[in-house]
Amino acid sequence: MTERFVVIGGDAAGMSAAAQARRRRGAEALEIVAFERGSYTSYAACGVPYFVGDLVHDAEQLVARSPEEHRRLGVDVRTGHEVLSIDTATQTVTVRDLDADTETVEPYDQLVIATGATPIRPSLPGVDAAGVYGVQTLEDGMRLRAVVDDVNAHAAVIVGAGYIGIEMAEALLMRGLTVTVVSESAEPMPTLDPDMGSLVAQGMRDMDIDLHLGEPVQTLDVFDDGHVKAVVTAQGRYPADLVVLGIGSRPNSTLARDAGIAIGPTGGIETDDHQRTSAPHVFAAGDCVETRHLVTGAPVAIALGTHANKQGRVVGINATGGDAVFPGVIGTAVSKVCSYEVARTGLTEREAKSSGFDAYPTTVDATSRAQYYPETKPLKVKLVTETGSGRLLGAQIVGREGAAKRIDVLATCIWNSMTVEEIISLDLGYAPPFSPVWDPVLVAARVAANRGA
Amino acid sequence: MTERFVVIGGDAAGMSAAAQARRRRGAEALEIVAFERGSYTSYAACGVPYFVGDLVHDAEQLVARSPEEHRRLGVDVRTGHEVLSIDTATQTVTVRDLDADTETVEPYDQLVIATGATPIRPSLPGVDAAGVYGVQTLEDGMRLRAVVDDVNAHAAVIVGAGYIGIEMAEALLMRGLTVTVVSESAEPMPTLDPDMGSLVAQGMRDMDIDLHLGEPVQTLDVFDDGHVKAVVTAQGRYPADLVVLGIGSRPNSTLARDAGIAIGPTGGIETDDHQRTSAPHVFAAGDCVETRHLVTGAPVAIALGTHANKQGRVVGINATGGDAVFPGVIGTAVSKVCSYEVARTGLTEREAKSSGFDAYPTTVDATSRAQYYPETKPLKVKLVTETGSGRLLGAQIVGREGAAKRIDVLATCIWNSMTVEEIISLDLGYAPPFSPVWDPVLVAARVAANRGA
Repeated sequence: MTERFVVIGGDAAGMSAAAQARRRRGAEALEIVAFERGSYTSYAACGVPYFVGDLVHDAEQLVARSPEEHRRLGVDVRTGHEVLSIDTATQTVTVRDLDADTETVEPYDQLVIATGATPIRPSLPGVDAAGVYGVQTLEDGMRLRAVVDDVNAHAAVIVGAGYIGIEMAEALLMRGLTVTVVSESAEPMPTLDPDMGSLVAQGMRDMDIDLHLGEPVQTLDVFDDGHVKAVVTAQGRYPADLVVLGIGSRPNSTLARDAGIAIGPTGGIETDDHQRTSAPHVFAAGDCVETRHLVTGAPVAIALGTHANKQGRVVGINATGGDAVFPGVIGTAVSKVCSYEVARTGLTEREAKSSGFDAYPTTVDATSRAQYYPETKPLKVKLVTETGSGRLLGAQIVGREGAAKRIDVLATCIWNSMTVEEIISLDLGYAPPFSPVWDPVLVAARVAANRGA
Repeated sequence: MTERFVVIGGDAAGMSAAAQARRRRGAEALEIVAFERGSYTSYAACGVPYFVGDLVHDAEQLVARSPEEHRRLGVDVRTGHEVLSIDTATQTVTVRDLDADTETVEPYDQLVIATGATPIRPSLPGVDAAGVYGVQTLEDGMRLRAVVDDVNAHAAVIVGAGYIGIEMAEALLMRGLTVTVVSESAEPMPTLDPDMGSLVAQGMRDMDIDLHLGEPVQTLDVFDDGHVKAVVTAQGRYPADLVVLGIGSRPNSTLARDAGIAIGPTGGIETDDHQRTSAPHVFAAGDCVETRHLVTGAPVAIALGTHANKQGRVVGINATGGDAVFPGVIGTAVSKVCSYEVARTGLTEREAKSSGFDAYPTTVDATSRAQYYPETKPLKVKLVTETGSGRLLGAQIVGREGAAKRIDVLATCIWNSMTVEEIISLDLGYAPPFSPVWDPVLVAARVAANRGA
């Protein structure tokens, strides 16, 4: 008997699930239908700032696999189809064909909800004016890029100084706009501790980004023609030809909630480590779910393509009789703003303390290569270590070329509950073009171990 | 009572031990005397190729800490002093002052032997001719650089295609010489599997290095004036204005052996995980020792500055009443030859099989950044996985910019005995400028897990 696997959402998580399921089951055993509201599948949302910045010239380059390619691989992709509701009792979904304006009821044997995240749009006066853009979907990026391509756009104001905010600042700088960043946070990159975030602030100012921190936006001034005019805070008024909202996103879990599926405290769909929801035969994956933070044990919702892909793979295996787990995350993230690289993993000092850990910080200055080697760049590593046990709880790195991806070693150490004393001994690659004789992460561990001893 | 800590050898291992001991004990409690045969201390031997290649302009840049700086920090460094013998019964060393041509007997309470490694000089006809250079010490590098600076040097032949061989090939190419590399190994970088080594061979040939593999050198032709003329193998005769020997080194353990201290099967001084030798109060560290390979459990001698520094630190702690361990190594190494980057850790496929593991290889092609991101470079990752358990035993990476240091994640995985299935879930940093959505090491783990399943 042919089973039917239904996918809601045609991006990273949903299509990874579909592709993995297809690899494991032939068409005679499994029909796979994917409903996508928009017209693209499997596109790199994280690539949108680079498309706006014209580092990526063509939007199609961001599409890893088009609907046609998915169809050729045996997945029945239906773009322009919005799932309106899920009935977990009858194992059906109600779907609207947006072009034909018709509705059908579609049965499933296994279902995956991969509805993604929705950008946060603050309820500010003027936020719906023309010239105010979110950057979530590929369509958002194409709209924004068209505006930037317009020679009359000169002044951009970005609201928010997190990942999206700093990436958009870089993109718009590269396109020759003057860039103002306004954020209510005390430092950019509020997922870092303030002492590390202040390094990013310095870097941004060095690049002539007009940075206004600790300033919540009060209103957006709008011209009579309905176009945005300026971003206004208690401290200033920042004229804008265009405004980009970069203040994060929240899990898009309404469809699941309306179906009676359990939603967690973060607003994301609750799943177990097999990505199963509270409803039988219903999985969820990607930006719409919450997952476990492996250091605190607390639920977290982190919208990131790499998690979406892994969770999708796990669904594709489990929906076809396999047994795979997604154990959780430790909050690893990397980003760049022009020549500055930023990375974090595990808990910040602030997070560690608010999670009840007795923790101490260690910050060291190091270099990306041997000190005598050309193009050596300074970088700063901050570790957060549990007092007593010496267990590494978190790490942050700010520097130039060669800084950010060093976080992966520390992420792997946290993943394995290593102590800073154990980390010192790690056999990491050493040669002058790649590292000082003590790699920066080992220098940090050594200093942390000395302090803890 | 003031104790006396004697250090034999003024480079990485010995001076790390001295510096660490000094940090833990003041001058009233501990006298520290370091005997160094040459005139430099704490220099970066691994930096010598970059000095020859003029990426590093001044030899002094390679000196991390001069004798004067060590003295200011409270270490009595005596350069131009060669230790002739160790008497472990009386706890003394006999030292010759090479300038004054006098000998003294010096007592110790704790001793560390850090006599380094000796470059292998094959017993070939002509090997002692003028124009034949080793590259081990800073003095070697200065001699070779003076020759390269000479406008009459045009053709260089490098014997050996391991780390030193390929780094010297890059250095001499950068100085405008024509470079021939002759090696008896079937591929360059014999610490890689041949399938990965062949990628390095291709890269070297693309850079106009004249590469002759599988050709043991038979003799060196010499002019009547005693200067080298050509390197001769059964297959060819390669004219040379200068010849560089890059065929590795062996532990310099004679002094220890003559003192009755246990030497291991590799020829390195045996130590426990506290860097203690078989003689009481005698430690050893650096290129002169052998250590444990943590995957096979077998003794290995690996001359590498990063191990020397770590072992020296462990000696400095243990010689002053502390308790630190150097657990061993897993054979991690990185190198580059022009734009090609090479890395390895753990066991190669060949090593795994010869060590009795039932292991299978997985090789994947990936990219250093998101595929659509500018400057994305292809790279190849090979994993060696234990059949059944799925445990990662080894990894190799060959690629361009952004390839080599990814080995550190896999080294940390091997260190923690992770399986490829576990590695898939690792929360590594993702952003388009740094990685595809599946980092290359995760792609490799995923493919390996699928094969093993």
